[in-house]
Amino acid sequence: MSMYEHAYLDHAATTPQALAVFVAMQPYCSEHFANPSSIHQSGVATRDAVARARKRVAGVLGCNPDEIIFTSGGTESNNLALAGIAEAHNFKGHIISSAVEHASVLETLKHLERRGVSVTMLAVDEYGRVNPEDVKNAITGDTFLVSIMYANNEIGTIQTISEIGNLVQKKGILMHTDAVQAPGLLPLSVKKLHVDMLSLSGHKFYGPKGVGILYAKRGTLIAPQMRGGGQERGRRSGTENIPGIVGAAVALVHAEQRREKESARLSVLRDWLIKEVTSRIPSAVLTGHPEERLPNSASFCFSGVSGEYVVMRLSERGFDCSSGSACTTGALEPSHVLLACGLDEHTASGSLRVTFGASTTQAQLKQFSSVLVEEVKKYEYILASRLGNE
Amino acid sequence: MSMYEHAYLDHAATTPQALAVFVAMQPYCSEHFANPSSIHQSGVATRDAVARARKRVAGVLGCNPDEIIFTSGGTESNNLALAGIAEAHNFKGHIISSAVEHASVLETLKHLERRGVSVTMLAVDEYGRVNPEDVKNAITGDTFLVSIMYANNEIGTIQTISEIGNLVQKKGILMHTDAVQAPGLLPLSVKKLHVDMLSLSGHKFYGPKGVGILYAKRGTLIAPQMRGGGQERGRRSGTENIPGIVGAAVALVHAEQRREKESARLSVLRDWLIKEVTSRIPSAVLTGHPEERLPNSASFCFSGVSGEYVVMRLSERGFDCSSGSACTTGALEPSHVLLACGLDEHTASGSLRVTFGASTTQAQLKQFSSVLVEEVKKYEYILASRLGNE
Repeated sequence: MSMYEHAYLDHAATTPQALAVFVAMQPYCSEHFANPSSIHQSGVATRDAVARARKRVAGVLGCNPDEIIFTSGGTESNNLALAGIAEAHNFKGHIISSAVEHASVLETLKHLERRGVSVTMLAVDEYGRVNPEDVKNAITGDTFLVSIMYANNEIGTIQTISEIGNLVQKKGILMHTDAVQAPGLLPLSVKKLHVDMLSLSGHKFYGPKGVGILYAKRGTLIAPQMRGGGQERGRRSGTENIPGIVGAAVALVHAEQRREKESARLSVLRDWLIKEVTSRIPSAVLTGHPEERLPNSASFCFSGVSGEYVVMRLSERGFDCSSGSACTTGALEPSHVLLACGLDEHTASGSLRVTFGASTTQAQLKQFSSVLVEEVKKYEYILASRLGNE
Repeated sequence: MSMYEHAYLDHAATTPQALAVFVAMQPYCSEHFANPSSIHQSGVATRDAVARARKRVAGVLGCNPDEIIFTSGGTESNNLALAGIAEAHNFKGHIISSAVEHASVLETLKHLERRGVSVTMLAVDEYGRVNPEDVKNAITGDTFLVSIMYANNEIGTIQTISEIGNLVQKKGILMHTDAVQAPGLLPLSVKKLHVDMLSLSGHKFYGPKGVGILYAKRGTLIAPQMRGGGQERGRRSGTENIPGIVGAAVALVHAEQRREKESARLSVLRDWLIKEVTSRIPSAVLTGHPEERLPNSASFCFSGVSGEYVVMRLSERGFDCSSGSACTTGALEPSHVLLACGLDEHTASGSLRVTFGASTTQAQLKQFSSVLVEEVKKYEYILASRLGNE
């Protein structure tokens, strides 16, 4: 057992549902539960609740309520954006994306390639950044969509979406961004970001699991990927998850209200931890961009150290963090993001991701860094003795 | 306002979440919330919760836990079953289904036809029943899938799935059934039903909205329709909705435990209401099968009466029921199910569906039938006077 209070430092993987979210959802579980498609008065009540939630989300994104599509999560939002647009283009034409995207984008693009779409995956620099010039140069007469993530889930690097979006939209091409890591940390105005589509996932910002959001600008033709009763204006069928939708909207509004103050607080913690770890562990290398990174994300590589081993030792000692992404199950191969940043497999396998949230304090991180230093040094000592014996 | 206590008689559209379900889900919202794909100990806890839920569901269906795929709802389960199997067959070959299926099946089949699959939609008899002989006769050398719903959501008719499944499986063809209306009312053993795939939706059996189940027999090749991190053994990506999954499993177990007693109780109420309505309203016609129907479903047509009007009047007087299905938004066209049963548009537009559940009592139905008789007679009287004046 740990001598420390348990510290959850894996907020990029998922977050606990906020109490206010739980409270907001509760009336829609057993009291106001009717099917919003029903014409009786109970159906009107839930229809109104969904409409209010849609308005709230639109308020945060600075768009119209009818531009919001509720889905089952970030994965579905990304699938719908990419496959929905490609299908609307009869799987003909060209998509530009990047090597550091989330699996839900990468796997969908692989699928679309098999269906006939041509795809350019842009390389990134050592910090995981896409160069806007590269986007410009990759555009062809056939390009109908560019999809670049807002901020990376593994290394925290923030892309210049506003700049990329601006140049893409000026060419009359659709711009999508996977913004799943952004709420509560980065601004979300779809106009300032110059995006036509933007994906969010409820459980990444203290909302419920099982609900996602896709912003799709008016006039964007998306072929539905979930077919049936024609909910969400025909763009996503299935009975609305009312508690989930209500909860996600409340969570997003809260995240946005706290954003400036909270990201300032977390940035200080982040910078302290990065300095502490890189100065006390000689083998530690910061991954991702040194400045242009999510305020809640510190990520490292310890060359020659097993990232999984460190994560499990830290877990035994009361600290939850991760090695790379938690979004791909049982993935013990080195991260595609770190490889794209130019790290070799050996270094990439020693990766550690520490992501903060509302519960994170300076005291927690002090304890955490001491334990981390101990564990990495112990591992390196054992490794060195073994090598000495050979 | 109503002089009666509010009575919810629309359980085929959706059900309230049971308290036990809410209680079971609660710890997984803010306490045990970690991403099941995380390797730290908090991730192990939620991974275990999902595994337990999977085992519970498998227990009810009489299958192996690895044959259960959690989805976002019945619509996704049906989409995944049909499109997933068709994609695994390269969209080549033949599917057999019926004219009375849910929109999520019908719309997916239309999509698959556009992709090259050939589809036979079987006609039904006046009660909405598929003749197993018709299935047999429709099978060709190219047929790879038969999809027939277990019980109809609009008229309650139960199909002879066991017989159809048996003949389909004997030919080495996959059998899928949309069993969304069945839990707590009909037996769910996938072996006795002779099905290779079966779809369920959490919110139809006092579980949460936003979670569905697809049973897929071992060895069934399903191409994933949601691509990403490879969750659900690669068959459905996206971070697991842990509270939803836990809640759906608890709800399904409860529904199964109460099934025999509750369906006996509801059958008595159903038979009473059908007799009462058809004897007191001369224009009333029972829709669906007189005996082989869901224990909780009574459905009628009142020729010349507007079903929507009656539903709204009943709603004002405290009774929630529906005209046809609530699953298709804003659908004011006559139901495809009633037309398939051979009713003309005029009769079909006067449809009323009354579906009972745990909260339904004999007293409620007595009040309901009196109000219904009043409202239909009032409508017919006004209609008759208008016609008289012309």
